[in-house]
Amino acid sequence: MDHRDWIQNHLFENAKGLGFIFVPKTEIQERLARFRKYMKRDGIEAFLVTRKMDYFYLSGTAQDSMLYVPTEGSPLLMVRRELERARVESPLADVVPIRSSSILPELIREHSGNLPSVLGLEMDLLPARDYLRYVDLFPGARFVDGSPIIKEIRKIKSPFEVDLIRKAGEIGREVYSRGKEILREGMSEIEFAGLLEAEAKRLGHEGLLRVRSVNYEAYSWHVLSGVTGGVVSQSDSPMGGIGLSPAFPVGASLKTMKAHEPILVDFGTCYQGYQADETRMFSIGKMDRKFLDAYKACREIHDAVLSQTRPGADCGAIFRDTLNLAEKLGYKDSYLGPPGLQVRFVGHGIGLELGELPYIAEGQSYPLEPGMTFAVEPKIVFPGEGSVGIENTVVVTRNGFEILTPLEQDVFEV
Amino acid sequence: MDHRDWIQNHLFENAKGLGFIFVPKTEIQERLARFRKYMKRDGIEAFLVTRKMDYFYLSGTAQDSMLYVPTEGSPLLMVRRELERARVESPLADVVPIRSSSILPELIREHSGNLPSVLGLEMDLLPARDYLRYVDLFPGARFVDGSPIIKEIRKIKSPFEVDLIRKAGEIGREVYSRGKEILREGMSEIEFAGLLEAEAKRLGHEGLLRVRSVNYEAYSWHVLSGVTGGVVSQSDSPMGGIGLSPAFPVGASLKTMKAHEPILVDFGTCYQGYQADETRMFSIGKMDRKFLDAYKACREIHDAVLSQTRPGADCGAIFRDTLNLAEKLGYKDSYLGPPGLQVRFVGHGIGLELGELPYIAEGQSYPLEPGMTFAVEPKIVFPGEGSVGIENTVVVTRNGFEILTPLEQDVFEV
Repeated sequence: MDHRDWIQNHLFENAKGLGFIFVPKTEIQERLARFRKYMKRDGIEAFLVTRKMDYFYLSGTAQDSMLYVPTEGSPLLMVRRELERARVESPLADVVPIRSSSILPELIREHSGNLPSVLGLEMDLLPARDYLRYVDLFPGARFVDGSPIIKEIRKIKSPFEVDLIRKAGEIGREVYSRGKEILREGMSEIEFAGLLEAEAKRLGHEGLLRVRSVNYEAYSWHVLSGVTGGVVSQSDSPMGGIGLSPAFPVGASLKTMKAHEPILVDFGTCYQGYQADETRMFSIGKMDRKFLDAYKACREIHDAVLSQTRPGADCGAIFRDTLNLAEKLGYKDSYLGPPGLQVRFVGHGIGLELGELPYIAEGQSYPLEPGMTFAVEPKIVFPGEGSVGIENTVVVTRNGFEILTPLEQDVFEV
Repeated sequence: MDHRDWIQNHLFENAKGLGFIFVPKTEIQERLARFRKYMKRDGIEAFLVTRKMDYFYLSGTAQDSMLYVPTEGSPLLMVRRELERARVESPLADVVPIRSSSILPELIREHSGNLPSVLGLEMDLLPARDYLRYVDLFPGARFVDGSPIIKEIRKIKSPFEVDLIRKAGEIGREVYSRGKEILREGMSEIEFAGLLEAEAKRLGHEGLLRVRSVNYEAYSWHVLSGVTGGVVSQSDSPMGGIGLSPAFPVGASLKTMKAHEPILVDFGTCYQGYQADETRMFSIGKMDRKFLDAYKACREIHDAVLSQTRPGADCGAIFRDTLNLAEKLGYKDSYLGPPGLQVRFVGHGIGLELGELPYIAEGQSYPLEPGMTFAVEPKIVFPGEGSVGIENTVVVTRNGFEILTPLEQDVFEV
C-alpha cells in the first residue's frame, strides 16, 4: 500500500481509536488570534516558529516543521517530515513541504507576497547557527526575540487544555495508588520508579516531560529515600538526589529503600502533551518523627499557598509569605533546600512544558489569572538525612482554584 | 548536617557504593589534549563549552556548568549548581562558582590573564540569545562555530568508553530476554515498552537517550506492531509508529498486539551516560511469512555491513552497497522506508549521544577508524502492514569489529 494513501485514509480513524485527541480548529484559531495581538503590540510583522512545542501549540501537529505566522493573512506550515501526517493532524489550511531552509524566503514570498521587515524568533532556544542563517536569508530584516510572547500566550490555559491536565492528574492518581502495592523494603529507588512509570505508560503517560531549556532535563523518576533526599544536584530543585551516574546525577538511584525512611516520590505525568506534576511521601512502616513533623509543615505551607490562590493575588507575595510561614514553623534553614542552596520558588507554571508562567517565586510581581495552571511544591531538606514534600497541580478559577491532582495527602505507608 | 560537609565527606563513597563510575583523570587529560590539538588547527584560542554532554566529556561532571578551555593553560570549570558536587566529580583543578554569565569575562581574566580574541562556541545548539550576550561580553572577539571539533574529538571512543557501551549492551541483553517472559497477546505496545523499560532501569539504565538536536527527542519505547510499524512520522527513521498523541506521535501506542504480527522492538539503553542501541523482532506465535522473509533480508544486509566493517572502509560506500543488496533481494521500495520517505542512512554513531560520528550514510566519504562505535540498523517497511528490522551496536577494532550488543538474532517468538 502507498504510505500517503494509508495516512490520508486510515491514520485519523486509527489514531482516534487509540485515544488521540486532535486539537480542535477553534482552539488553534483562538491561539493564533492571541498570538497576533501580542505580535502587533510588539511591532513584530511575522513570526517564524521553529520549536516543537511552540508550533504544536499553534498548529496542532508536532511533525518536524516550521510555522510562519504573519500578522495579516494565513499561517504557513512548512513540513520536513511527515507532510501527509501533518495535514491530517493540523487544522491549518496551508501545509507545504520544505526540504531545506534555503527555500524559506521563496516559500514565504509565494505565500504572503512579500518578506517581513520585522521577524520574531524564539531566540531563547533557537541555535545561533540557525539565527545567523536567517540573518543571511532575510537581508535587511530586523530580528526580535519573540519568546516572551510565546510564554505569554501559553500562560492562560483553555478549558480544552485544563481538561487534558486533569486527565494527566488522573493517571497520576492511579500511579500513586499502585505505588502502595509495588513498594517493598529492599527494592531500589530506580526499580520502584521504573515500575511506577510502567504503570503510568500503560495508562497513556507519554514518558517525556518537556521543559523549555537547553541543559535542564526533566524526568519522572524522582524517587529519593533517606540520605539521597538530602543531596542537592544540578537541577533548580530543593534536592536532586544522587542519580545513577556522574552523567545523570539526579533522580532515583540504585540505593535500596529501608523501613522508616522518608521516601519522596515526585512523579510527573504527561497526557496528550500536557503535564501534571505531583509529589507524595511513602514510607515502609511508620516514617520517623522528624520527617512526619516536617511533612506536616509542608502541608501547612501548601495549604497556605492555596488559600491565597485566586485571580489578582500577587505571585511574589504568595512566595514571600511561605518564607515567613516556614520560619515560623521552625524550618527557615531547611525550607526549599539547605542554607546557601535554597531555591527561590515554591510553584511553577505547567502545561506543554515545565517552567511555563506563572512562577510563585521571588521577584515575580504579577497577578494570578483565571486559567493559569501551576504546581505548588513546598519541600524541606535535611542533608545527610532526607527530605519531604508535597506537590499538587492546580488551575486558577474565577473565584479560587481547583486541584487537578486529587489524591489523598497523607503519607502512603506500606 | 551541613550540605557541603556531606558532599565533601560522603558523596564519593556513597556514589561508588551505588555503582557510579567516575571519569578517570587520565581520560580527561587525553580528551583535553585532543580538543586543544583541533582548536589550534582551526585557530581557536579558547573554547567556551556550555552544552551538558560536551562539558561532561571534558570535565567528568554534568553539574550545571560552563567550561572555559584555553589552548594554553588550565581549563576553568564555572559551576552554577552544585559546586561542591562538581568538585567531587571532576578531576579538574580549577572549579569555581558562577552566578551569572555577566561575570564571565572577569572570571576568565582572573584565571587566564587575558580574554580570548578567537572564541569557539557550540553554535549548532547554543541559543541565539546567549550567543548575542557573548558578543556583548567579549567585544572585539571573533566567534567560531566549534561544534565540528566537538564531534570530531568524540568520534573515537577510548577503551574506558567502549567498556561502558558494552555494559549498556549487557543491560539490553537482559531486557530482551525478559521481554520473552513479559509479552502476551492483547497487551498494548506501550505497556510492553514500559515493562521493558522498568527492567532496564532496575539494571541501571538511565532512562534518557540523549541526542544532539533541538527538536529531535529520543526515547526507548519504540515498540511497533503490525500496522503501526508501517507509519512514518517526524523522526529521521524508516518508520516512527503512531505514538500516543498528536503531541507525541512516535513510538509505542495503545494498540494491542496480536498473534502473527511483526513486533519491532528498538530499545536503547544508557549506562553511565553511554548508550547502546539494538532492535529485535518479537512475535506471538509464528510471524507471517512476508515479514519473516523481510527480516531475513535485514539480517543479510546487517551481516553485509559488518563484513565490510574495518579500519579504512568508506562509510558512504558501505551504505551504497546496502542499497544494491536491498534491491537484489527485492526490497528496493521498502528498504529504510516507503518510497519518497526512505532515510539515507543504515548506521549512526553512538556514545554519549545518538547521532555522533560516523554515519553509514549517503555522502559520508570518510573511513572507519578503530574506536568508532556505531549502530547498524537495516529496516524494511510496508505501509498498512508492518515493519521489520535488526540493529546492533558495534565498535571498530584494529582488524574488524566487535558487537557490543551480543544477543541472539532469531525472532523472539512467544
